Amino acid sequence: MKIAIVGATGLVGQEMKKVLAEYFKASECEIFEFASQERKDSGVRELAKSWDLVEKCDYVLNASSSEIAQEIATHLKSGQVLIDNSSGFRMDPKVPLTVPEVNPETLRARPPIVANPNCTAALLCVALAPLRALGLERVTVATYQAASGAGIKGLEELDRQLDAHVTGKAMPAPQVFPFQLAMNVLSHNTAIRPDDNPGGGYNDEEWKVIEESRKMLGLPQLAISATCIRVPVRRAHTEAVSVDFKTSTSVAQLREILGRAPGVKVVDDRENNHFPMPIESQNQDLVFVGRLRKDPSLANTFHFMLSGDQLRKGAATNAVQILKALHEAKT
Amino acid sequence: MKIAIVGATGLVGQEMKKVLAEYFKASECEIFEFASQERKDSGVRELAKSWDLVEKCDYVLNASSSEIAQEIATHLKSGQVLIDNSSGFRMDPKVPLTVPEVNPETLRARPPIVANPNCTAALLCVALAPLRALGLERVTVATYQAASGAGIKGLEELDRQLDAHVTGKAMPAPQVFPFQLAMNVLSHNTAIRPDDNPGGGYNDEEWKVIEESRKMLGLPQLAISATCIRVPVRRAHTEAVSVDFKTSTSVAQLREILGRAPGVKVVDDRENNHFPMPIESQNQDLVFVGRLRKDPSLANTFHFMLSGDQLRKGAATNAVQILKALHEAKT
Repeated sequence: MKIAIVGATGLVGQEMKKVLAEYFKASECEIFEFASQERKDSGVRELAKSWDLVEKCDYVLNASSSEIAQEIATHLKSGQVLIDNSSGFRMDPKVPLTVPEVNPETLRARPPIVANPNCTAALLCVALAPLRALGLERVTVATYQAASGAGIKGLEELDRQLDAHVTGKAMPAPQVFPFQLAMNVLSHNTAIRPDDNPGGGYNDEEWKVIEESRKMLGLPQLAISATCIRVPVRRAHTEAVSVDFKTSTSVAQLREILGRAPGVKVVDDRENNHFPMPIESQNQDLVFVGRLRKDPSLANTFHFMLSGDQLRKGAATNAVQILKALHEAKT
Repeated sequence: MKIAIVGATGLVGQEMKKVLAEYFKASECEIFEFASQERKDSGVRELAKSWDLVEKCDYVLNASSSEIAQEIATHLKSGQVLIDNSSGFRMDPKVPLTVPEVNPETLRARPPIVANPNCTAALLCVALAPLRALGLERVTVATYQAASGAGIKGLEELDRQLDAHVTGKAMPAPQVFPFQLAMNVLSHNTAIRPDDNPGGGYNDEEWKVIEESRKMLGLPQLAISATCIRVPVRRAHTEAVSVDFKTSTSVAQLREILGRAPGVKVVDDRENNHFPMPIESQNQDLVFVGRLRKDPSLANTFHFMLSGDQLRKGAATNAVQILKALHEAKT
């Protein structure tokens, strides 16, 4: 099996290579890495000069832009599959948007393009999918998103700011984020949608969470809202989630359902105040879920927290899991 | 006017002294400071040996514990007012729980004890109070709370952890918070209430937000829930708020109402992604409110963010504003 990673030098591309090595034996797959510029020392080829090689791969993992995804799609040969981490094809009705724990049926027909969802939406849907049986009436999410969601440059910007804060150096001017992130909390750095558009007043990240969750969960009319906020954390996103169910349930039942849900690890130790948190969920493939509790006023409303590694289950791991499912169905 | 500050050496006590100096001329008031131990160099007296002096003060600001608040109450002479920042009297039906912008009428009878609310609840209610006219049906809050909400020791713990992170020293074991706060996000460090109690599964901070907001807003049946989370920020709390109204409204109307609301500063610049954030709300007395938007699915649901200095409007400033209102009503 030949696998191409496009955008191999970014945080997600690097993580894809790492996850592939964890999910497959070296003898099972040959990995080719591509980026906009050649990096001979690390075996990364220049994409523009390497389409003949990309076209020979069984799977193309795109960790680059929507524009590159479109270009890969035009090169795609019969039997090849593009697993695309960009937002380019996610809302295309002909393209499945897949998290294997949420909607594995979307992979059955071996589609030529499979979209990998927004990281925040992917983590959320891993926790919501098993709860669909109770009837999802309404979902409200507030996020605590890590700097590395904005790539290597976002992570380095946080590191430089923390260094300046601790050492007393002058605080470097923000470049990736609109304001200082260290010692601060910021509304997500994507653009705010105009008022006369669907999702007016929401930022693009929030709108992805809303639209993509509806598509993945198969609930196009779901009442769902998100507030996406960056926090000075290096890696792993955390989310505070409120859900109204259509049927009655209990904390015990939720804990039981989530306890046997694929991709979920329940972390809900009230005595020790031990709940999902990024320093534990980072570098993990499972979505940590906990702080389960019943609303004090509303009969069918429950609240919980989740935390997951947005570079792994929110991106690279999910792409590799899609690849693995497609590969196993074929062989 | 003689003013006592009890718990004068803590973060809130120190801030009370600072705010008093901003709100009153030095000729208007004489300030006496008390703590559990004498600190001759800074003029702080030992409380246990100084009750005669406390009893001579017109106002006693308590920035110490609930136990000390009870003790002060037993010493209170006719005409004296205890303005108590502890949680000791907050839910006592005979004691007003006051934010002057929210329920100034509670001060009219010059009560002997006035409770100063939980910081997160106070900031929230400054933003919710002017919206009561639209009918508050349901409120959901997720918080981004600063380390200094846990006092000087919480702040120092975050500082030590950040220093270790940046300099590569061994990460010191957490003492104030149950887990490392630097580069992390933590469910609030208060105890989780047992399941068979009101608010079972909520932590004490969340339950204060719920109960105290209901009391302050005069809406004892309000459907309100909170998820309280600590973030690695030194000072100022941020909150993501969702509100269902009983009547229809618009973002324009909300912005107009909040724009003329006392204690509120609207920060809602969509073009520059400039919204309420702790590095701007810290050391300020106003509660910054913004990110106003309409829910994409629900007719009367709106979302916003707020950020405010929990040591000032959430504690010291509010106490001094109560004192000033009582003083002005008397003179």
